[in-house]
Amino acid sequence: MAIQTKIVECVPNFSEGRDKAKIEQIVQPFRATEGVKLLDYSNDEDHNRCVVTVMGEPEAVRKSVLEAVEIAVKVIDMTKHEGQHPRMGAVDVIPFIPIRNMEMEEAIELSKEVGKEIGERIGVPVFLYEKSASAPHRENLAKIRKGQFEGMAEKIHEDEWHPDFGPADIHPTAGVVAVGARMPLVAYNVNLNTSDLSIADAIAKKVRHIGGGLRFCKAMGVELTDRHIVQVSMNLTDYTKTAVYRAHEMVRMEARRYGVEIVGAEVIGLVPMKALIDCAEYYLGIENFCETQILELRMME
Amino acid sequence: MAIQTKIVECVPNFSEGRDKAKIEQIVQPFRATEGVKLLDYSNDEDHNRCVVTVMGEPEAVRKSVLEAVEIAVKVIDMTKHEGQHPRMGAVDVIPFIPIRNMEMEEAIELSKEVGKEIGERIGVPVFLYEKSASAPHRENLAKIRKGQFEGMAEKIHEDEWHPDFGPADIHPTAGVVAVGARMPLVAYNVNLNTSDLSIADAIAKKVRHIGGGLRFCKAMGVELTDRHIVQVSMNLTDYTKTAVYRAHEMVRMEARRYGVEIVGAEVIGLVPMKALIDCAEYYLGIENFCETQILELRMME
Repeated sequence: MAIQTKIVECVPNFSEGRDKAKIEQIVQPFRATEGVKLLDYSNDEDHNRCVVTVMGEPEAVRKSVLEAVEIAVKVIDMTKHEGQHPRMGAVDVIPFIPIRNMEMEEAIELSKEVGKEIGERIGVPVFLYEKSASAPHRENLAKIRKGQFEGMAEKIHEDEWHPDFGPADIHPTAGVVAVGARMPLVAYNVNLNTSDLSIADAIAKKVRHIGGGLRFCKAMGVELTDRHIVQVSMNLTDYTKTAVYRAHEMVRMEARRYGVEIVGAEVIGLVPMKALIDCAEYYLGIENFCETQILELRMME
Repeated sequence: MAIQTKIVECVPNFSEGRDKAKIEQIVQPFRATEGVKLLDYSNDEDHNRCVVTVMGEPEAVRKSVLEAVEIAVKVIDMTKHEGQHPRMGAVDVIPFIPIRNMEMEEAIELSKEVGKEIGERIGVPVFLYEKSASAPHRENLAKIRKGQFEGMAEKIHEDEWHPDFGPADIHPTAGVVAVGARMPLVAYNVNLNTSDLSIADAIAKKVRHIGGGLRFCKAMGVELTDRHIVQVSMNLTDYTKTAVYRAHEMVRMEARRYGVEIVGAEVIGLVPMKALIDCAEYYLGIENFCETQILELRMME
């Protein structure tokens, strides 16, 4: 991998969370493909679902995802599928996430290429969603998925719900699939020195987009009962535009009204390096910093 | 490269800054060796010196450095060398710098292996310096180099200056070489909203180690004449112990006495990722962050 290499993340969700042998079959292409890293795959038996996280060069990710989809379509039968998580296909959703040296436009293009091939070659109808959506009412995954597998055979014939690629009818055993591009999500929580959940809730409402706050911030109050404190739990849906430090400082600002202070924070799961380097640049006031100054990234040259 | 791979940096200084063909011969092993990245090599004609920066797996770095030393010893004749920079050998100094997954002890061990081979096989006397030094008076490179190439033939016979490895006399054309391990240096400057150099100087004196300040901080005042401001220019010689944010906040604290504020900062040259991630963790108060959460590092697995 070179420092200029394009890196895309993909988090396909498969509707199989119980049969370990089938899950292993499905993830096999991610292990076998050069240029792809299988970062995680966790199955949930109650949800009867497996969420796979892979990352790598766009072409390698494209190839391995298509192979995994072909396998999943063969081994998963949605007419026999039960599980608590809403789902509409053997492969339920395939988001592509630009991580390095890639514009959103390129991730959208990739999602459309993959969607086209799933539709035309593999024969499963595809709905493009999120940034790839062909119409505003198709951006939201929950809206596309409404009715689930069982309702999709009819829904797909409604004027508003013709698929973007593939056959006009659902695949008899694999249903339909949503494919799209989105920004990486940064899960960031800020802890407050109070046990009053209503304060965390009130701050969350002001900081988040729907309450008049930051454009790419979702937020809610959460109790950390064992620590007797509360936190503002946030999802930053575009950290390049709603920076981590900005969300942090806005929580601090709103907390003042309640005489409450920040006593810690946490980053949950994976995070792009730039999301944190940006914070160092902001708080130190660093001018003209360039990523190529980071030793570890130079090793990738 | 895996996320656990040990990475060492090496910055050998060669006493040839004018003959491009010779310089290319010397750096050739760094281009040719798998597992080594040649990050930079800049020659200075006035200094008649070439500073090479390489990084990679310890064994690959060891091998390529030894090959480059052998070439330099063949092609450089110190009896004919002239230049403004003090120097004592065809290869003047070879510092090894632990970057990832390596303790200082391992870098010291590596420097001693390389030193032993330069002394015993290549036949150039070696002084271990910095963290590898065999006695306190040998830690400082300037003290070892005092007298330069021309004085070394005599100095090496003084009781205090027997070499650590290799022959008891200098190599007739290649002189001697210093080999050792040190921490990466973080060059960090903080700008102040004043044009009064005496203020930057006064702050530098308080922040730096010799003035009673931070253990791993060197500092001085510098004028940025075109911007009509001054800066506290610092070298952090162990960022794991004297963190960037700590040096920054100490400058801020001392600046208050003069009614002066920080108006920016800069990181010069290469910096380990951790030096900046630490700052984000400090200012945000992030708890329990683990490097394996950084997406880019996961690509290295």
